Amino acid sequence: MTMDPCIICVAITGSLPRKSDNPAVPITVAEQVESTQAAFEAGATIAHCHVRNDDGSPSSDPDRFAQLIEGLRHHCPGMIIQLSTGGRSAAGQTRGGMLPLRPDMASLSVGSNNFPTRVYENPPDLVDWLAQEMQTYDVRPEIEAFDLSHLFQAAVMIERGQLPANVHVQFVMGVKNAMPVDREVFDFYRKTRERLMPQATWCAAGIGRHQITLNEWCVETGGHCRT
Amino acid sequence: MTMDPCIICVAITGSLPRKSDNPAVPITVAEQVESTQAAFEAGATIAHCHVRNDDGSPSSDPDRFAQLIEGLRHHCPGMIIQLSTGGRSAAGQTRGGMLPLRPDMASLSVGSNNFPTRVYENPPDLVDWLAQEMQTYDVRPEIEAFDLSHLFQAAVMIERGQLPANVHVQFVMGVKNAMPVDREVFDFYRKTRERLMPQATWCAAGIGRHQITLNEWCVETGGHCRT
Ligand SMILES: [Zn+2]
Ligand SMILES: [Zn+2]
Ligand SMILES: [Zn+2]
Ligand SMILES: [Zn+2]
Repeated sequence: MTMDPCIICVAITGSLPRKSDNPAVPITVAEQVESTQAAFEAGATIAHCHVRNDDGSPSSDPDRFAQLIEGLRHHCPGMIIQLSTGGRSAAGQTRGGMLPLRPDMASLSVGSNNFPTRVYENPPDLVDWLAQEMQTYDVRPEIEAFDLSHLFQAAVMIERGQLPANVHVQFVMGVKNAMPVDREVFDFYRKTRERLMPQATWCAAGIGRHQITLNEWCVETGGHCRT
Repeated sequence: MTMDPCIICVAITGSLPRKSDNPAVPITVAEQVESTQAAFEAGATIAHCHVRNDDGSPSSDPDRFAQLIEGLRHHCPGMIIQLSTGGRSAAGQTRGGMLPLRPDMASLSVGSNNFPTRVYENPPDLVDWLAQEMQTYDVRPEIEAFDLSHLFQAAVMIERGQLPANVHVQFVMGVKNAMPVDREVFDFYRKTRERLMPQATWCAAGIGRHQITLNEWCVETGGHCRT
């Protein structure tokens, strides 16, 4: 199961699927660049990126990210590169070890929640540190909102000056044991984002079979992905 | 700071405040029984209970809980006794070690979230185990909803038969780094509880200075605490 389903922003590879799950999943940097280029030529403007070790396991290795950035800058000129600081690829500050590469954007989780088999841990001090690193290296954060309180936390961080007012917010729905795909919640998320963070842009990501539903809702209600 | 502020359900002692913070906080079992009896005589019907070690540190010791239950049954006959399985007093299955005492109710967190300085960890397998123990010992759960997805998770667990349809739900608001006290969220919580769990009873708890606000909202909108 990929956790990075925003097909319009093009999440080329999540942290979890391997070749044994789906032979079409691009794993190596060369494969990732190739598949991103295809999406870029088809109109995608943001590439949400993870990297892998040679055995296909998730990684946060800054050298691999550097290779990927180099390949993308060359083959997809002008594409917005967003690197994952998610907790499926590393733990603690290792999750932000690639931020000095100054990608255009990076993902940022500002709260904790359950995942299908474990706790997705984003302790407050790590969240603060990652946000600080993003400021230091001029990286625009994308808030991964797995639950409603994450919107409130992002708003608090904007008020404190830890996040820019024009932060990008992604509503993530359909993760087992976290927030399901629910239209009333989606509408409340939009309303709350508008109320708390009027300058923020937003989009929504549905996991797996929910991708299409979320994209339809997103387009219908003016999420950034198609605008 | 106490995390157990529902003054109508009477949370006598949270897991954190110590004598050094507030000399009036009841710590020993005898002190807890005495202060609960005063609340009981003033009309409180549910006692939400934590226990402490002799040095005042949080505990989940079943023997201490057994002493507390014995004292409460004697001095507050008919009062509903709710024991905490919260993660501030113990870790892993130790959190549910008192459930064989068959209290009337026990608290149950069904998701994870951030607390002021750390992650409040409720991994899925522990949640399932605690719910199972509550069924085994005929203990009615109170769901501690620190975020919106926790309502959805409780509804899933009702559907799976892990929780009774008439589960009691408490909306917890005002915890730093989790859900703040927000009227629109409170109203959306109520609406969502009604939609997903029509048979569940509910109340709301505000932390610290927010107690009164939440109680007012609760009374105004028909939460169980005053009905
Ligand atoms: Zn990702
Ligand atoms: Zn997006
Ligand atoms: Zn408690
Ligand atoms: Zn209550």
